Amino acid sequence: MPRQIRLNAFDMACPGHIQQGLWTHPDDQSTRMNDIRYWTEHAQRLERGLFDGIFFADILGVYDVFGGGPGDALRGGVQVPANDPSLIIPAMAAVTRHLGFGVTCNLTYEQPFLFARRMSTLDHLTGGRIGWNIVTGYLDSAARAMGMKGQIAHDDRYDLADEYMQLVYKLWEGSWDDDAVVMDRARGLFADPAKVRAIRHHGPQYSVEAMHLCAPSPQRTPVLYQAGSSDRGRRFAAEHAECIFLNGQKKDDVRAIIADIRARAAANGRSAESVQPFLGATLVIGRTEAEAQEKFAEYRRYVSSDGALVHAAASLGIDLARFDLDEPIETGRGEAIQSNIDIVAKAAGPRWTRRKLLEQMVLGSRQAPWVGSAERIADTLIGWSEETGVAGFNLSRTVSPAGIEDVIDLLIPVLQEKGAYKTSYAEGTYREKLFGHARLPAEHPAARHRGTA
Amino acid sequence: MPRQIRLNAFDMACPGHIQQGLWTHPDDQSTRMNDIRYWTEHAQRLERGLFDGIFFADILGVYDVFGGGPGDALRGGVQVPANDPSLIIPAMAAVTRHLGFGVTCNLTYEQPFLFARRMSTLDHLTGGRIGWNIVTGYLDSAARAMGMKGQIAHDDRYDLADEYMQLVYKLWEGSWDDDAVVMDRARGLFADPAKVRAIRHHGPQYSVEAMHLCAPSPQRTPVLYQAGSSDRGRRFAAEHAECIFLNGQKKDDVRAIIADIRARAAANGRSAESVQPFLGATLVIGRTEAEAQEKFAEYRRYVSSDGALVHAAASLGIDLARFDLDEPIETGRGEAIQSNIDIVAKAAGPRWTRRKLLEQMVLGSRQAPWVGSAERIADTLIGWSEETGVAGFNLSRTVSPAGIEDVIDLLIPVLQEKGAYKTSYAEGTYREKLFGHARLPAEHPAARHRGTA
Repeated sequence: MPRQIRLNAFDMACPGHIQQGLWTHPDDQSTRMNDIRYWTEHAQRLERGLFDGIFFADILGVYDVFGGGPGDALRGGVQVPANDPSLIIPAMAAVTRHLGFGVTCNLTYEQPFLFARRMSTLDHLTGGRIGWNIVTGYLDSAARAMGMKGQIAHDDRYDLADEYMQLVYKLWEGSWDDDAVVMDRARGLFADPAKVRAIRHHGPQYSVEAMHLCAPSPQRTPVLYQAGSSDRGRRFAAEHAECIFLNGQKKDDVRAIIADIRARAAANGRSAESVQPFLGATLVIGRTEAEAQEKFAEYRRYVSSDGALVHAAASLGIDLARFDLDEPIETGRGEAIQSNIDIVAKAAGPRWTRRKLLEQMVLGSRQAPWVGSAERIADTLIGWSEETGVAGFNLSRTVSPAGIEDVIDLLIPVLQEKGAYKTSYAEGTYREKLFGHARLPAEHPAARHRGTA
Repeated sequence: MPRQIRLNAFDMACPGHIQQGLWTHPDDQSTRMNDIRYWTEHAQRLERGLFDGIFFADILGVYDVFGGGPGDALRGGVQVPANDPSLIIPAMAAVTRHLGFGVTCNLTYEQPFLFARRMSTLDHLTGGRIGWNIVTGYLDSAARAMGMKGQIAHDDRYDLADEYMQLVYKLWEGSWDDDAVVMDRARGLFADPAKVRAIRHHGPQYSVEAMHLCAPSPQRTPVLYQAGSSDRGRRFAAEHAECIFLNGQKKDDVRAIIADIRARAAANGRSAESVQPFLGATLVIGRTEAEAQEKFAEYRRYVSSDGALVHAAASLGIDLARFDLDEPIETGRGEAIQSNIDIVAKAAGPRWTRRKLLEQMVLGSRQAPWVGSAERIADTLIGWSEETGVAGFNLSRTVSPAGIEDVIDLLIPVLQEKGAYKTSYAEGTYREKLFGHARLPAEHPAARHRGTA
């Protein structure tokens, strides 16, 4: 019996998410991003496919590194315009019962007190189905939008994030006891003040004296996701994250990252199973190999290479427009994105060029798709799951919703036949479905703040 | 033919909103505030009643003036716990087509760039049905939650708000031209960069250099509500607000406030009709007078006088717990809440006491209900509408949803018979329904920023 594979739909409220240009495909509906029914229909579709969750990426700025301005990002719809994903989730939650929701929220620019309330409200309204992808922001354009000259240095952002986490843990876990809400109509007693505490936090970055505004939500702390790949990012993940996002084309690389983060987590007293890795993947599936290849060839006709370069330039912090096709690209920009550069250099060879990069970006991004019959893709996923220990996959949007419909109609039945995919949802909250327990375990740093605010 | 009366349901995601204690009534369902279906059912109910909108109040702190702590607020569920209302709206929007949504958002603690995006996303997802109640916050407890020692001084808050408004106007009205989004699949052209501009704002409080992240939404700027009653508050309303909230028990007072704000608006070059006043009201309706009085007597058995005092103490900034029942209450606290004190003193007489205050708070707040047969309440509303020029009423929650069901089943048919209430929704956005035009008129300060960021 193979390991059970979890699937998240990886999405974003914008025209071009990972695979750039596919919004121009005649079947693509992602341009309906402003239409609430596009999202409620999609939620019902994903629940029909027993997807574990939908995961929303987000950015707070615009990609303006390529060509020194946002022109090409706008032309290609490269993650712009981008609506606030947290506001889509309540509508999707109202038409589903099991689907989980991961949402990327940048903590750098939001008051922790307000952010904690927003997540608790989402956890209540979804019945305990919310997850948070913790990001600290990497775009200068976002920083300038918030009145700063530029981005905070990479490691300083993580220090700020560590303090932020302590603060929101106090609000989520420490401010209200489990039995604080009495709701006794006969006595007119809504909550017992002896069981509600103001938190008092005075740190280098934040000062908060307040009780949390929300009553205890089903999960308290949302399921915590993180995607940092730098040394400091992995240290942060090993302390806080329950799920981690990985990207990688080689099993050895992915295995090594997982082993490293789990070893760090163990050093923090956490169990290996308390960190579940999800691998980013793009699938192009057919009933047969030939059908899959045909679909791939057809999708490729709509790819935007410029769009792919716009996104890559922002991730790398290098204006790729300034280089000729075969001119060697020197790296050099600071630690913020060094790990991205390392990955690219490793994949493309030390003397990497725009041409080499473009050759990799076969479907509009550096994430090369897995193309094949449902049977073969199922074996690929099972192989990765068995050999690397990834808990599941974040499936990047291709042509929407046709790509997800292929997963549901073609791939999932095969995975189910092979015993590698659930045939019904488990009951319980998002964390219960993923980990079997409702609350963060005692060894997680959030647990320290219970009952002690 | 009488004037058409507009109705908003005035609500809040908390147990006790205006009329304190009624959550203890056996029929009351407001304690289902964490359940998304409570809200979607309510949205459908309000749309069945052709309500113009639901209006969400909000606070970012807890009422801790009474007794010097939050104990009584927690015991009585007096606006605590309080979920984030903006996250409820998408779920309600997904199951309705016409209902408008007003949401109270305090601008003091949110980055204007992120807030502007949140409102634009809501305007998109609701199909142009969003309104914003602009507040600047008055609770010390909220300020302490955000790392400040106490609240910013009243008039300084409004100065900050003026700058904030200029900023969000630039983002909403100035950053994208109407025809910036091309969405041309054949050319792979999503947006025309020549028609999208970064705004550059460097003011005393805020610096923002950024293009708005959202494409133009149906209304651009949400319908603007404001409730300030102080001199500075009225000045702000006269410049920015399209709808104003009023409270008042006497027609002369209400007429005078409307005349004053409209005169100030006219001095700003705005037309009188560009400001629509809504009066707060609480209704207890029966098929007959006797049934209404019986219902009123029954509701009163569930009222919490302590809860009412907790709310009043916070609004007045006076710890009413420190005064004996008949001890004269001296005022004195600063301008922030002076207008509230003036109103209370005027209503209760110069030597006002806790007892006099309690005598006014017959249903759990200082807003005394109008009690009567549907016929009589209809005449009351029509009388107020005709004699004061209010555009409509914000109906405070009583027993939920029974109170709203009485409005829909008993009152509205009578209003319709009298020709004072619509029999179907008009088409169009919230602003089109309220004012007949989709965008803010040219004389509104937001219009200055069109095409010029």
